[in-house]
Amino acid sequence: MLHFSMSRDVFKSQLLITSKAIESKTTMPILTGVKLLLVEDKLTLTGSNVDISLITTIDIKDEKADMKVYDKGGIVLDANFLLKIISSLPEKTFTLEVLENSQVHITSGKADYVVNGLDIENYPRLPEVTSQKPLTLPLALVKQVINETVFAVSKHESKPILTGVHLMLQDATLKAVATDSHRLSQRIITLENDGENFDVVLPGKSLQHISSIFGEENEEITLHITSSQILFKTENISYYSRLLEGNYPDTDRLIPSQCSTSVTFETSEISSAINRASLMSHEGQSNIVRLEIKSGKITLFGNSPEVGRFDEELSPEKVEGEDLTISFNPDYMKDALRAFGKSHIEIQFIAPIRPFTLRPTEENGEFVQLITPVRTS
Amino acid sequence: MLHFSMSRDVFKSQLLITSKAIESKTTMPILTGVKLLLVEDKLTLTGSNVDISLITTIDIKDEKADMKVYDKGGIVLDANFLLKIISSLPEKTFTLEVLENSQVHITSGKADYVVNGLDIENYPRLPEVTSQKPLTLPLALVKQVINETVFAVSKHESKPILTGVHLMLQDATLKAVATDSHRLSQRIITLENDGENFDVVLPGKSLQHISSIFGEENEEITLHITSSQILFKTENISYYSRLLEGNYPDTDRLIPSQCSTSVTFETSEISSAINRASLMSHEGQSNIVRLEIKSGKITLFGNSPEVGRFDEELSPEKVEGEDLTISFNPDYMKDALRAFGKSHIEIQFIAPIRPFTLRPTEENGEFVQLITPVRTS
Repeated sequence: MLHFSMSRDVFKSQLLITSKAIESKTTMPILTGVKLLLVEDKLTLTGSNVDISLITTIDIKDEKADMKVYDKGGIVLDANFLLKIISSLPEKTFTLEVLENSQVHITSGKADYVVNGLDIENYPRLPEVTSQKPLTLPLALVKQVINETVFAVSKHESKPILTGVHLMLQDATLKAVATDSHRLSQRIITLENDGENFDVVLPGKSLQHISSIFGEENEEITLHITSSQILFKTENISYYSRLLEGNYPDTDRLIPSQCSTSVTFETSEISSAINRASLMSHEGQSNIVRLEIKSGKITLFGNSPEVGRFDEELSPEKVEGEDLTISFNPDYMKDALRAFGKSHIEIQFIAPIRPFTLRPTEENGEFVQLITPVRTS
Repeated sequence: MLHFSMSRDVFKSQLLITSKAIESKTTMPILTGVKLLLVEDKLTLTGSNVDISLITTIDIKDEKADMKVYDKGGIVLDANFLLKIISSLPEKTFTLEVLENSQVHITSGKADYVVNGLDIENYPRLPEVTSQKPLTLPLALVKQVINETVFAVSKHESKPILTGVHLMLQDATLKAVATDSHRLSQRIITLENDGENFDVVLPGKSLQHISSIFGEENEEITLHITSSQILFKTENISYYSRLLEGNYPDTDRLIPSQCSTSVTFETSEISSAINRASLMSHEGQSNIVRLEIKSGKITLFGNSPEVGRFDEELSPEKVEGEDLTISFNPDYMKDALRAFGKSHIEIQFIAPIRPFTLRPTEENGEFVQLITPVRTS
């Protein structure tokens, strides 16, 4: 039965990653546990909450892990409790040995624990996800695409398909789109290598995990896709997520190709002004700010009869086209600007009641966001 | 009417301190506000939640404040909202001007706010607290005494007097005691200067504020005490707290003067072992650990049938007296050890069912803690 000793810190770091897939409240009690399995030359830690599953791998030949293997095998232990024990160990290494009745003996220095575990046979099997032609991308790029789109998914379950990010690969062009029907964010990337075409919708909640689960190194990540699952895989981490079922709406027709008014800002300039105006709108009944473009002068207004009012004249880098007054939810604008980071953006308007677009001026349409204005009287 | 300009950051730092006395939910809506008052050469900010009140002072001659005063006066503004506005201002200075109808005009750069305020006349008056012979102490000493005792106050309102710290000054001896009837912490200090004798009970909740409100500098703090209020006063901050009414129990008779078993530990040694054992006891029905002293060998046990069991042999610095097995709540021990900081402690036992004491070995009875054991079987 499973019996090994190893570095407390290496085990803890892998357990912390795996724990991100484990919820302490679940309808399947065994899923509060982490599955430890030592076969061949690898110790794997598995966590799952049905929607997503995570497997991290420790190579027993990894010097940092400082492993000694006395016997192979597996066990399921409460993840939260195990993490507390590992964090409290007095020495830098510990020994873990499975006893009879799924009990586990953990020792480190003079500290001596016997913990109740669960039989590995009762742990649910993970789906098999292998694709014939997986797509390998830089991890940094995958994280970027997620961060640029995932915030725009719907938080409401009334239209489940909109809680996901629409991800398509066609002829070496990768497109990611998210919309909650009030705003939209779309990133297009032309790839050098070509994978098998796909068209899937990934749950936004799963994707929000990616940044915290996968490290910051210059790693590559491989995407395996089946009809119901996606697997993100690096050398030491396998991250499974179910896909959303259903047809994602056609969003291409929503993005306008013309405009009557165009304004260019330094992102930080408009961003901080929007923050100030939204202080006022957040206190009010309707969370709206007003932007007025008049003879080349642009002013932002916030008003909340209960609390007070705000105005600020902005300093655009460029203003072109017709005068316009438009009202919108400043939180959508804040999210959009945050996704642009530090850059310059061009905002294009058609009319006070038509969605407007935001694009970084450095790019040529590969990243676009769209915000629907609020109709006021 | 009130009209001044000044440094955003200096104003914000004082507002942050004052806000610690302000609750956003209160039965008196005006108390969600901060009272700004500029008279003579000082701008004062006042916050209160009835139990405690805080006044911070900005001297208009303070160069860092960079103040220009155009008119004196006062206003009450929602503290939380004002803090958000001040934090978002685009420039390093701002101007605040009271308009008609208690509206306030705040400007900074091109940002322009009009905020609804409240008439200063409606703000409740603070109690007058002046004593003929106030006691002046180093701030660090006052903080130390609070940190050494306040954690032991009762969290339950069933015995309101035990939710406070008993503070007595008699003939230049200052004594602070807190107990929740399961454990007790007492600090005695012999003062060089002599104040008027007092015997009061301060709410634990108020005292927990002190560390975060008063800075870390080598300042002195002056205590003014009346029959119902205490005032802690430094140059720029006045902190008022009501006192608790009622008689504090006589705790002197609780502290044993003899012992049959005595053990000395390095605090960190016993502290980390208690942490490990409490992992186990926290998961169980009854939160108890067991200490066994047998022929000079000391072992700590934790047991929770649902989860598992723990034992660890400890490494005491000294063991004297009779063998003994005693059970107690590890959280009381953890709190006690934390209050000792890094040092060596002597634990003295009389019997398995009698309270035991903890004292730092470096001192001679000025700091003592007492923990009541749990009777098992």
